[in-house]
Amino acid sequence: MSKQQQTAISPTRTENYPEWYQQVIRASEMAELSPVRGCMVIKPWGYGLWENIQRLLDDMFKATGVKNAYFPLFIPIGFLEKEAEHVEGFAKECAVVTHHKLEKGEDGRLVPAGRLNEPLIVRPTSETIIGDAFSRWIRSYRDLPMLINQWANVVRWEMRTRLFLRTSEFLWQEGHTVHATKKEAVDRTHMMLTVYKRMAEELLAIPVITGEKTVAEKFPGAETTTCIEAMMQDRKALQAGTSHFLGQNFAKASGIRFQSADEKEEFGWTTSWGVSTRLIGGLIMTHGDDNGVILPPRVATAHVVLLPILKKAKESEAVMAYTRDLAERLGRILYHGSPLRVEIDDRNIGGSRNWDWIKKGIPLRVEIGPKDIASNAVFMARRDLDRKQSQSVAKERFLEEVTDILDDIQKTLFDRALAFREENTRNIDDAGTFNAFFTPENSEQPEIHGGFAWAHWCGNGGCEETVKNRQNVTIRCIPFTGEGEESGVCIECGEPSEKRVLFAKAY
Amino acid sequence: MSKQQQTAISPTRTENYPEWYQQVIRASEMAELSPVRGCMVIKPWGYGLWENIQRLLDDMFKATGVKNAYFPLFIPIGFLEKEAEHVEGFAKECAVVTHHKLEKGEDGRLVPAGRLNEPLIVRPTSETIIGDAFSRWIRSYRDLPMLINQWANVVRWEMRTRLFLRTSEFLWQEGHTVHATKKEAVDRTHMMLTVYKRMAEELLAIPVITGEKTVAEKFPGAETTTCIEAMMQDRKALQAGTSHFLGQNFAKASGIRFQSADEKEEFGWTTSWGVSTRLIGGLIMTHGDDNGVILPPRVATAHVVLLPILKKAKESEAVMAYTRDLAERLGRILYHGSPLRVEIDDRNIGGSRNWDWIKKGIPLRVEIGPKDIASNAVFMARRDLDRKQSQSVAKERFLEEVTDILDDIQKTLFDRALAFREENTRNIDDAGTFNAFFTPENSEQPEIHGGFAWAHWCGNGGCEETVKNRQNVTIRCIPFTGEGEESGVCIECGEPSEKRVLFAKAY
Repeated sequence: MSKQQQTAISPTRTENYPEWYQQVIRASEMAELSPVRGCMVIKPWGYGLWENIQRLLDDMFKATGVKNAYFPLFIPIGFLEKEAEHVEGFAKECAVVTHHKLEKGEDGRLVPAGRLNEPLIVRPTSETIIGDAFSRWIRSYRDLPMLINQWANVVRWEMRTRLFLRTSEFLWQEGHTVHATKKEAVDRTHMMLTVYKRMAEELLAIPVITGEKTVAEKFPGAETTTCIEAMMQDRKALQAGTSHFLGQNFAKASGIRFQSADEKEEFGWTTSWGVSTRLIGGLIMTHGDDNGVILPPRVATAHVVLLPILKKAKESEAVMAYTRDLAERLGRILYHGSPLRVEIDDRNIGGSRNWDWIKKGIPLRVEIGPKDIASNAVFMARRDLDRKQSQSVAKERFLEEVTDILDDIQKTLFDRALAFREENTRNIDDAGTFNAFFTPENSEQPEIHGGFAWAHWCGNGGCEETVKNRQNVTIRCIPFTGEGEESGVCIECGEPSEKRVLFAKAY
Repeated sequence: MSKQQQTAISPTRTENYPEWYQQVIRASEMAELSPVRGCMVIKPWGYGLWENIQRLLDDMFKATGVKNAYFPLFIPIGFLEKEAEHVEGFAKECAVVTHHKLEKGEDGRLVPAGRLNEPLIVRPTSETIIGDAFSRWIRSYRDLPMLINQWANVVRWEMRTRLFLRTSEFLWQEGHTVHATKKEAVDRTHMMLTVYKRMAEELLAIPVITGEKTVAEKFPGAETTTCIEAMMQDRKALQAGTSHFLGQNFAKASGIRFQSADEKEEFGWTTSWGVSTRLIGGLIMTHGDDNGVILPPRVATAHVVLLPILKKAKESEAVMAYTRDLAERLGRILYHGSPLRVEIDDRNIGGSRNWDWIKKGIPLRVEIGPKDIASNAVFMARRDLDRKQSQSVAKERFLEEVTDILDDIQKTLFDRALAFREENTRNIDDAGTFNAFFTPENSEQPEIHGGFAWAHWCGNGGCEETVKNRQNVTIRCIPFTGEGEESGVCIECGEPSEKRVLFAKAY
């Protein structure tokens, strides 16, 4: 794209990536900050994505035997205190409920009243409150595995917020399972990570790398945290989902015991795993261009918008009839099992109408004017292609091929993201190259620099911290046991290393 | 049912209705109280109902043009204060967040820290926070109507809680709309009430009466509240859903203004409407019997449970193969557009297995033993019929007829509930009969007395209050304008009345 060409979003990605991100969300009407500090309003165009992700992911969970339930929003402080690492991780950022009513104060304004004996926190995650329920539900090995998920809102008080990526309240799902053996729990941890990888790659068209977190980066209270990591277009990593093997830590904290087949009392082995509305931020930063967001068809809020051209009153009726008929026929076509989602925009506002839908990232825009009707055609534009590639297509052919076109857009987005990641990933073996790779000033566009570096690491937390403190580069994940074995020396201290780990700057 | 016959739930409905309700929920594993005061855990068997209600109702909303969005959990106190009646209605029962972190106190225990400048309340309903967003989103009549819904948790601090019916936290949907004219807003209020009536009657098999609340019973801040009211088996009324016409009250409080077609600045006209997990309580109390809950097929967590009889090891393999094949074939059958939900229970625990599923209220139980296989049949029991009516059915016929059988169960439940309501509804014209009707001691079973009384009322709040104070009987609803016109005299004061209103004791 030449510098002269006008773009819908200002600034462009290369001019100011963080600001581009905010402007894309504003222009697409996906979300906005609310007057409540750190909380967002998810607008219909953004919420539709979440609804689609939710339905598809929920089906994937259920196919593995998981059932949904719902647990309290509030957690007594005493519950949080039961797991030492856990409380350490969450105490600094939780909303605390201390009163249960409001009364008129001396100046006539309302003030908190009815102080609670024990304050409650708004759940930042639910291991402890769900663990308490599990301790009552589980008696015998016959009750296992216990496979539960909840869709819920959680609150982690954030000082610096960014829409979808980091907000005080966000929506997520949290799965919680209990198993009779360590092996089963470890297997479930990996099974759910695989579900997340499939969801990210097949539904969101976001290629991800899977691996294990270092001790410094793992979930507070977990034995191991596994994750999916994606590269955004500023070459930073985004942690897009995590699956934790919790060992017996939470089982011991919550008293989750069961009688084994040979009649011994044992503690359960637990896992937890979650993805959140952060995925939407990842989707925007993976697929957006300087004209706005591009929605992957599998989860798009809508697939096709029909734009009737209503210039002359005498033609309008015929154009609208043709449009409504097309919408009705499209709505009967199944795309991966669900009816196509079709919008009609009959506003008479000139060229800004087309731009509105480009900015919203709808996969297909279809213009319908008197000429198209005369030739029984439609004028189709794919959001993933340049606008100059818009073309007239026979209506019947369009109806026949629309789902293939959507699948092709989906594939294009994935391939493009994968190619981008590969271009910006390298193996690095010496500290000089490593530091240069992550130095903004070495890039033509300081906002966009670095990438993914596979480099050797000795396994020492000290080296990890030194690297982090120098350039804010962190270990995103370590390949799983048995993967990527290769001897080398630590990028920081020169001690022996058995495998490369993934380094990047991150959200 | 004779007194000698054993029932699965103790006490029975006539022995102790409130306790029967608690025991039905416990036995069916639908929900339980949590250690957090007034908050419940909705277990998978109960949550499945909510998921089904949610999907079907959501489709009904969308068919009327409504889109989903999501708004913050927290509301600044100042927002609540903007509407005088509204704050009066909710200030006495709201959870207040005053701090944003925890720190170790002198005794080593965690205490609230990081005091907020302005306390936040956890939403008891969202008119004010959504109104604030609407005031930013709406500029012109072209932006109207604005039709938004959110699925969310809300908190109303309750001192006396009862599972599903009255809990401090509950799940619900709240729709919020803005219109250019009063007429459109009133029409939308009624349209959504009609959606609720259809949902209650067609999906939950609960017959409902629609009407308008009195001033004393309306939503705080509404001009008028319309409602659906159902009769439970203790003959009390349950308010199962409300749809409010809010006039311009909240538009003025939140500054929702728009430029009209003739370029005048006007305030919008708003509505809000909601149903909650309370519906599940209503479902239990409408359809349950002394053996537990009975789930209406349209929303049942599962439709059919297959119970393989695995007495002898050598037969087990064949029985399980037959069972799995049947489950697989059932799972491909569509019931009102969705695949049948089938469970297999292969536990070898004798007769208690059958009772477990009776208590859970699954519409169909199907036993499969070697004899059934030999005759290519299944042994089917309908939850709505007596157990003695269980019968052997040829397998192919069962597969052909299963959806008809489910529809027949659905219809039976509705007809039974409607007949019960009609039996216990009467027109009453004098105070003596009225008071006697609502006197527990006049009933053989004091727990179950009274019913719905259509009686004349002058429209005076004083008479309404006198009746309420005497026997805790309230006006459930007033027929809509133009309905039920009939002259008479007020049951309390003898002044002229133009129509009967519905009186009952209520949840």
